[in-house]
Amino acid sequence: MAVTGPVQGMRDFTPLEVRRRRHLIERFSSVYERYGFDPIDTPVLERLEVLLGKGGDENEKLIYKVLKRGASLDRARESGEELADAGLRFDLTVPLARYTVEHRGELPRVFRRYHIGPVWRADRPARGRFREFYQCDVDIVGSDSSAAEVEVILATSGALESVGFDGFSVKLNDRRLLAALLGALGVPLEQHATAVVALDKIDKIGLDGVAGELGERGIPAAAIERLRAVDLPRISQASALEGLDTFARELARLGAPSDTASLFDTLRSIVRDVQAVRDGVSLRIDPLLARGMGYYTGPIFEIAGAEVPFALGGGGRYDGLLARFGKEQIPAVGFSIGFERILMLMTEQQRFPGDLGGLDAYVTVFSPEQRGAALGLADRLRRAGLSVLMSLGATGLKGQLKEANDRGARVTLIAGPSEQEQGVVQVKVMASGEAVMVPAAELEAGVKARLA
Amino acid sequence: MAVTGPVQGMRDFTPLEVRRRRHLIERFSSVYERYGFDPIDTPVLERLEVLLGKGGDENEKLIYKVLKRGASLDRARESGEELADAGLRFDLTVPLARYTVEHRGELPRVFRRYHIGPVWRADRPARGRFREFYQCDVDIVGSDSSAAEVEVILATSGALESVGFDGFSVKLNDRRLLAALLGALGVPLEQHATAVVALDKIDKIGLDGVAGELGERGIPAAAIERLRAVDLPRISQASALEGLDTFARELARLGAPSDTASLFDTLRSIVRDVQAVRDGVSLRIDPLLARGMGYYTGPIFEIAGAEVPFALGGGGRYDGLLARFGKEQIPAVGFSIGFERILMLMTEQQRFPGDLGGLDAYVTVFSPEQRGAALGLADRLRRAGLSVLMSLGATGLKGQLKEANDRGARVTLIAGPSEQEQGVVQVKVMASGEAVMVPAAELEAGVKARLA
Repeated sequence: MAVTGPVQGMRDFTPLEVRRRRHLIERFSSVYERYGFDPIDTPVLERLEVLLGKGGDENEKLIYKVLKRGASLDRARESGEELADAGLRFDLTVPLARYTVEHRGELPRVFRRYHIGPVWRADRPARGRFREFYQCDVDIVGSDSSAAEVEVILATSGALESVGFDGFSVKLNDRRLLAALLGALGVPLEQHATAVVALDKIDKIGLDGVAGELGERGIPAAAIERLRAVDLPRISQASALEGLDTFARELARLGAPSDTASLFDTLRSIVRDVQAVRDGVSLRIDPLLARGMGYYTGPIFEIAGAEVPFALGGGGRYDGLLARFGKEQIPAVGFSIGFERILMLMTEQQRFPGDLGGLDAYVTVFSPEQRGAALGLADRLRRAGLSVLMSLGATGLKGQLKEANDRGARVTLIAGPSEQEQGVVQVKVMASGEAVMVPAAELEAGVKARLA
Repeated sequence: MAVTGPVQGMRDFTPLEVRRRRHLIERFSSVYERYGFDPIDTPVLERLEVLLGKGGDENEKLIYKVLKRGASLDRARESGEELADAGLRFDLTVPLARYTVEHRGELPRVFRRYHIGPVWRADRPARGRFREFYQCDVDIVGSDSSAAEVEVILATSGALESVGFDGFSVKLNDRRLLAALLGALGVPLEQHATAVVALDKIDKIGLDGVAGELGERGIPAAAIERLRAVDLPRISQASALEGLDTFARELARLGAPSDTASLFDTLRSIVRDVQAVRDGVSLRIDPLLARGMGYYTGPIFEIAGAEVPFALGGGGRYDGLLARFGKEQIPAVGFSIGFERILMLMTEQQRFPGDLGGLDAYVTVFSPEQRGAALGLADRLRRAGLSVLMSLGATGLKGQLKEANDRGARVTLIAGPSEQEQGVVQVKVMASGEAVMVPAAELEAGVKARLA
């Protein structure tokens, strides 16, 4: 017997799941549009030379590679030619970089785009980790103003608020401040990358765990001791402006060079602007926030959910990425929402509206001869904008009422010979069991009144 | 320099193109939902054993195959193991068949689903033909009632009407009637397949062209002569019920066995039901309609657009497909809309609404110090549901007004020191050039009044 499950690590979605995903996509899109972001779309396949960058990205190892059209193992054996020249995209940022350079002439100088779509990674499947999953990104390309950071923070916070999240906070840092801190602690430059891998785990394993791992990674014990002496809680638990002041004092105390002042000014300006328009968004400074060894070059941010042990999103400024395609350096800042995690949380916490895609009416068919008449009733309601199911399989009134009930129809229409003789349609309200006779000529209004 | 175009045969979509595609998807989905169809989604990758069926489908040759996780040419050389075990789906019907068998226990006995999504074929690119393109399918699985045909015809016609199409007609035939006709003409059974390939081209090359190709394919000359003697125009140009009568008489004249009567009855019933509820849908009988050598087993249909040289959609009954996954035979009927063709036509004929995703307001920034105030104005309008762009790049009032104009903003807000002193915001209506002073406290209402 054939295996009929989806491929490993990927998912079939039921109608309810599709409607929930669509609900999220529509809400997020609507917010992003209000913030002036434009949607783009790109092929799921990209050339391998586009996907494979400087080799620094872990995700590149996880690319699903696609065989060339007509590629054969035999020919590859003989000629040694490459079998694959394209792969499934592993994020939406690489396609954005390619798109921006390709279409530069047609795009506004400051290009705001959002993109919500699937990406693929041949990762080991685990709970909550899939090989096909959605990403949800906003990016502003072409602006070096810190107002761009403000706009992506506001838009992302707005997107989360639009689906009922509150109580989250946005953690801020700057990659250059993190580097200054590591330098002041005495971590040699060549160890910054390995140190960041450990620091990135602080939310999961705590400061003690990080200190242990830093030791294992060969970071000097003196540096780890100095790290432990930094008053991290005082920075991260205060208001963001206070946190920045404390962070600056701690850096000065550690003997960091004073050229970080303008970085603090930029973060202060971001904090002030965000707070001026949206006092509900809680901002916090996290001097150890690293956001991986990726492409970030300036301010970085992460959304921490209330009582949620993982980030709901993250982003930052990455001014170097677009230079990869041989063009001048173009500044860019982006913020990505963890679409699948948010979907999972909202499902677990039953935050989705209960009436997504509900069926309004079920039309029974009294007998095969009455099929045309039943179709006519269904069609009238459909033209009036209602979602209507006509019986195709179930026979007998009892079977059809059961089907109507199973499918969640809110009303069921019955129009047998006696109703037809009287020029009425029986409208049965499924929740109450109440049945009313509606004049056939006033069917649409009569049904809508029962649905209201 | 790196090549930054999309992979060959695939497309980047601009914001306007994304909005147009989304507009079509939303309209079609809305109609399908009203007809009681549920959306599903499945992974873009399927196991090759799922994609590769009986070998009868041309599309199987066009599958993009995906390398196994960690597959290497070297290991394949040594062990001869398969490099690929999955591929990108080439249609939405094979995934539906797999999904239906996999989830049979959770699905209603009669399962109506729609699916709008991308598929991939490593075809030779040509004008209007892409390697990544959308399909848009409705199918009813589990009903052998001809009401299922009626419902998919009504839903598909409704979908086309919802985006402004009229004047199209639905051509009807039955695969078994086509076989009876070929038999009566004297085409041997083993030549039916090759004859159908020629017949499928009749819209493109006409009856003479088809006759010529039938000859090249070795169909007996006598059969071709008998085909030419069939009064095709009288069948296909009459009303559908008359066309069926004429078709039946012609079959009888040619000496076809009389066991086709029930097939004609079914088509008559479909015609009567569709016409009873939707007199705007023009139905026509086409005795040579074949819909390829695919999986159809009963009634088949195709939508012919007014003054359009290609089909806008097609479908039919395919009762055998699901048996492929080792389960009992499950009846099914489907109708697919040519999404990309319709999009192309609507673009060429300028049928899309002009205001898809339009920007409502542009907020100027008088000076860097005023940025927070400008963000505040933008945020108030965004909360009021408007789409608002704040200046990030352009400097000076003139440059910002130009940007507002370039981006199609309907109003532009100016709030310099003098406006702030007076407690007003200047709202400039871009179309007329008119500028009004709106009290800052009434900003939302004032702007909305100018947009109305």
